[in-house]
Amino acid sequence: MKKIINDPNIVVQDMLKGMVAANPATIKQLPDTTVIVRSDAPTINKVGLVSGGGSGHEPAHAGYVGKGMLDAAVAGEVFTSPTPDQVLEAIKAVDGGSGVFLVIKNYTGDVLNFEMAAELAEAEGIKVEHVIVNDDVAVEDSSFTTGRRGIAGTIFVHKIAGAKAEQGATLDEVKSVAEKVVANVRSMGMALTPCTVPAAGKPSFNLKENEMEIGIGIHGESGIERKEISTADEIASELVTKILDDGVHVRGDDVAIMINGLGATPEMELNIVNSKVNEILNEKGIHVYKTFIGEYMTALEMAGCSVTLLKLDDELKTLLNLSSEAPAFRV
Amino acid sequence: MKKIINDPNIVVQDMLKGMVAANPATIKQLPDTTVIVRSDAPTINKVGLVSGGGSGHEPAHAGYVGKGMLDAAVAGEVFTSPTPDQVLEAIKAVDGGSGVFLVIKNYTGDVLNFEMAAELAEAEGIKVEHVIVNDDVAVEDSSFTTGRRGIAGTIFVHKIAGAKAEQGATLDEVKSVAEKVVANVRSMGMALTPCTVPAAGKPSFNLKENEMEIGIGIHGESGIERKEISTADEIASELVTKILDDGVHVRGDDVAIMINGLGATPEMELNIVNSKVNEILNEKGIHVYKTFIGEYMTALEMAGCSVTLLKLDDELKTLLNLSSEAPAFRV
Repeated sequence: MKKIINDPNIVVQDMLKGMVAANPATIKQLPDTTVIVRSDAPTINKVGLVSGGGSGHEPAHAGYVGKGMLDAAVAGEVFTSPTPDQVLEAIKAVDGGSGVFLVIKNYTGDVLNFEMAAELAEAEGIKVEHVIVNDDVAVEDSSFTTGRRGIAGTIFVHKIAGAKAEQGATLDEVKSVAEKVVANVRSMGMALTPCTVPAAGKPSFNLKENEMEIGIGIHGESGIERKEISTADEIASELVTKILDDGVHVRGDDVAIMINGLGATPEMELNIVNSKVNEILNEKGIHVYKTFIGEYMTALEMAGCSVTLLKLDDELKTLLNLSSEAPAFRV
Repeated sequence: MKKIINDPNIVVQDMLKGMVAANPATIKQLPDTTVIVRSDAPTINKVGLVSGGGSGHEPAHAGYVGKGMLDAAVAGEVFTSPTPDQVLEAIKAVDGGSGVFLVIKNYTGDVLNFEMAAELAEAEGIKVEHVIVNDDVAVEDSSFTTGRRGIAGTIFVHKIAGAKAEQGATLDEVKSVAEKVVANVRSMGMALTPCTVPAAGKPSFNLKENEMEIGIGIHGESGIERKEISTADEIASELVTKILDDGVHVRGDDVAIMINGLGATPEMELNIVNSKVNEILNEKGIHVYKTFIGEYMTALEMAGCSVTLLKLDDELKTLLNLSSEAPAFRV
């Protein structure tokens, strides 16, 4: 295992220390937790936004904590859901009297633990609502999920629900726009190489030297097919076709695209994928309104990428363009 | 070779197409060149800023083209200097009557080709000045360089000289502030794994399973030492100590830090490195004014990182904080 770490058992704490050291004016770590919150939390009369999940997907989710996006991110151990008590700490820290909204990726552990935290918070008198993001069209049900998985499309939920909350929307209004994003966002990924969880010390699966996996999850969960590596154009086409087959994005639509690197993919390759994705959407009469290329939702040092399409109406465009001060998503 | 590409011989053109497709309102590719310029180039009465170099270091340099940073970036083949005629095209495209300033990383090929382009442009009546960035303290002279190499510190030159030019400064004033950055910026890197140039098809060097290289260059040029992988804290300490030994950054100084991933390093690990870098600087009485963590100057899919320190005075702080619309460096 080749990693720049101190001890596999403390990577999350070491990482959180480094994140706070990099942004001391804007974020802080709640003492004795793995929760990162905005320094000015709670914002009075603003809905508090909380997300989180297993670590190893950086910059998700602590990189999205900042004015205009999340109020708090809860980090679990690598590829492991955070516990309900940690999520509860985040909820309590960001409740400014207008309630708290949870953005949950659809993994069984995350859903259970975030929902349990919501119940505990409600018992303490805090209004809590949530949305479950399930943008990955690759497979129905998988190793850790019932239904579709939540992957890079989650970042669009953070951005848009965050902007809505920043405008002073009510908890119901934030929930409503988050649900609109979830209804209109679809993603699919692929990988060339596996990744290694530090505490495990070896890759969680293997791919042959000439092999890739289409539809793989961000923890290495099985996808649709293992096959010989094809060209970037063929890969882009396969991912986009499967997304479009879901029927959400059609001729005449405006969309935002995210070409997301899983950790070890050179940005050169992400741009090459984008070139073909753009060409295909042009041919289909789908208008690309905005494109995001980079590492937004990673899987440690997995090589591979995902493509996300979000169908936009005027409200979503406006919210997507509003200011964000989160370190990993500056607008 | 596991890469998401179409053909090793056209990766640069494919990539540039994808970059422009992602940012059609703000950048364009000059026809029949590998030059990316701001859509509104040339800006009249503003010094034009041009950088570039071999490809494979994305987002350097085209990701830094935008209002407040570069006016143009010239892409060579992977790890290969762009030719003088390409650089000349960039200079001509961004000259708005106030002259053009070139930011050159210190590699023999880049220096020769950019300087030759400058002479050709001057013969056509365009005023051209340049700075050579040589921030890498690892080695004096190396495979492709006389003197120190230019690496991630170059991004601070783009940002600060770009902000100065945007303010309407003269060519001499832009040159002067760029030279101030070069005098005050130092970097050093290390790698855990090599990378593969697409057209070569195999790694340019090898490192054993338990081995790392300290002081390695962004094309895999030899560093100071190959040795057994140590902890993140030891690596951070070794890089920072070597930078501080150069004597530029001392107790009482304000500095900007860049913790730069070389391509395949999880952001988790960059944050862990930052935690220790921050601790060391605190102990030394050096004040961290601002921190940048991410992939700014990569080496394809090399795993590793570099640390950069820039000593700041009031002018540099102001320029560092001014707005930038470059996709890879939004302020």
